[in-house]
Amino acid sequence: MYYGAIEAGGTKFVCAVSNDQFDIIDRVSIATTVPDETLDQVFTFFDEYSLKSIGIGSFGPIDVNKNSSTYGHVTTTPKPGWRNFDFLGAIKKRYHIPVAWTTDVNAAAYGEYKRGNAKNSESCLYLTVGTGIGGGAVVNGRVLEGYGHPEMGHLFVRLHPDDTYQGFCPYHENCLEGLAAGPAIEARYGKKGDQLEKEDHVWKMEAHYLAQGIANYTLTLRPEKVVLGGGVMKQKQLLPLIRSEYRNLMKEYVSTPDLEDYIVAPGLKDNAGITGCLLLAAEECEA
Amino acid sequence: MYYGAIEAGGTKFVCAVSNDQFDIIDRVSIATTVPDETLDQVFTFFDEYSLKSIGIGSFGPIDVNKNSSTYGHVTTTPKPGWRNFDFLGAIKKRYHIPVAWTTDVNAAAYGEYKRGNAKNSESCLYLTVGTGIGGGAVVNGRVLEGYGHPEMGHLFVRLHPDDTYQGFCPYHENCLEGLAAGPAIEARYGKKGDQLEKEDHVWKMEAHYLAQGIANYTLTLRPEKVVLGGGVMKQKQLLPLIRSEYRNLMKEYVSTPDLEDYIVAPGLKDNAGITGCLLLAAEECEA
Repeated sequence: MYYGAIEAGGTKFVCAVSNDQFDIIDRVSIATTVPDETLDQVFTFFDEYSLKSIGIGSFGPIDVNKNSSTYGHVTTTPKPGWRNFDFLGAIKKRYHIPVAWTTDVNAAAYGEYKRGNAKNSESCLYLTVGTGIGGGAVVNGRVLEGYGHPEMGHLFVRLHPDDTYQGFCPYHENCLEGLAAGPAIEARYGKKGDQLEKEDHVWKMEAHYLAQGIANYTLTLRPEKVVLGGGVMKQKQLLPLIRSEYRNLMKEYVSTPDLEDYIVAPGLKDNAGITGCLLLAAEECEA
Repeated sequence: MYYGAIEAGGTKFVCAVSNDQFDIIDRVSIATTVPDETLDQVFTFFDEYSLKSIGIGSFGPIDVNKNSSTYGHVTTTPKPGWRNFDFLGAIKKRYHIPVAWTTDVNAAAYGEYKRGNAKNSESCLYLTVGTGIGGGAVVNGRVLEGYGHPEMGHLFVRLHPDDTYQGFCPYHENCLEGLAAGPAIEARYGKKGDQLEKEDHVWKMEAHYLAQGIANYTLTLRPEKVVLGGGVMKQKQLLPLIRSEYRNLMKEYVSTPDLEDYIVAPGLKDNAGITGCLLLAAEECEA
């Protein structure tokens, strides 16, 4: 018997199965097209295994409120076919086993908390900075959800005094995501981030916004570890700049571990999400 | 056998004892002077009763990190005698019973969650707006703590375009507390809030800042209920203005209960904190 995991992204699905020790024994990557087509391939993969449970970490927004009539659905995504799709229901209909259901970033937070760079911490925040910005967290031993899941990327932040870019968020224009996700970098400078590696001012601006987000998350949640993943964070020069901006902003007002141990890269690298899904599958089995 | 509670404020301590049904059978209010003097009166009050456990909700900052060598201490307060005082230790030394220890606002959040306006909710945020701004929360059934306790009042917010006041926070000048706590109103207009009741622009400015804070807490935590207490919130015209500013800012991006049911006054009025302390005392007994 195995655990199954689905890290459902807007571009690709990663599915995996593991043994009880969470060693991944098989995995597959599937393009995210329309639900029927994508799930057909998911089923083909999992049908080969006898599964105890499945953990899903999904792109969003999704409904995670167990008291809601649309619990388990993808909600207001612009992605064709996925809006209002009963994702959890489709998986449960195929496999009559326990299924854990949360966001991709909550799954990644849980993976880092149990097996990654937050494994000796009692709480953690996971932030992905890529085409969007999303955050998940583990609080009191469980992923952070409430009436819905966190939407940390949409935090309202102060503008950098030198920034004239208006932001690309269709809801809030210049929220954190609108100013600091990958598309904002490209729109502001006319080039993608990986073509701007040597431009210090680009990364200082980026660090200004991300540090402000991390400061506000810290004041609200007081996590023991902040793990930063996603495509934009592949720029290695960014992490020390974020720590430095954070230090200037917070003025040591609240205690944290040393910043080098507090604001860190993912210990599981690109496997944080899928590992978290496997661990949540195991938890769901025990629940 | 009774439960004991200490709501330890910077100006006064409220102590209470209750029966198993949390009916308060005795209470006292004690001026907060220096620790020895204040605690002498606390002991005089509690010595009359046979207690099962005590719950403390304390002014801060305090150390709530159980892995810290100064767990249970008041930390960097400017209040004479209290800085680095081992508050929890002093209570435990006198009464050899379980003692719960958290912030005043976490205790109030717990009180509202169990017995107040959040009692049918699965999570809640409690914000006090008075001489300072502080926030507590209940997440996954427990009060929200991590490496330390939340310091939600110090959130970095965007300035109102008409605001020329620089803020009074000694750490961050114009953080939320520096711009929106009671002393900011007095400094900005030269009068205390209760002398400015009819001045619409005062309360619109105030609502602008508080709504921004609530928006950012909502995006981070997704509580099912936001309870607003404290002296500034005694201005009844403020609550509807906050809801209206929140609506304009968030543009319905994340679902919440109807705003009239989401952003609310405390159901327990001024007893949220002491009730929370009693409930936490009972929990500690079972732990």
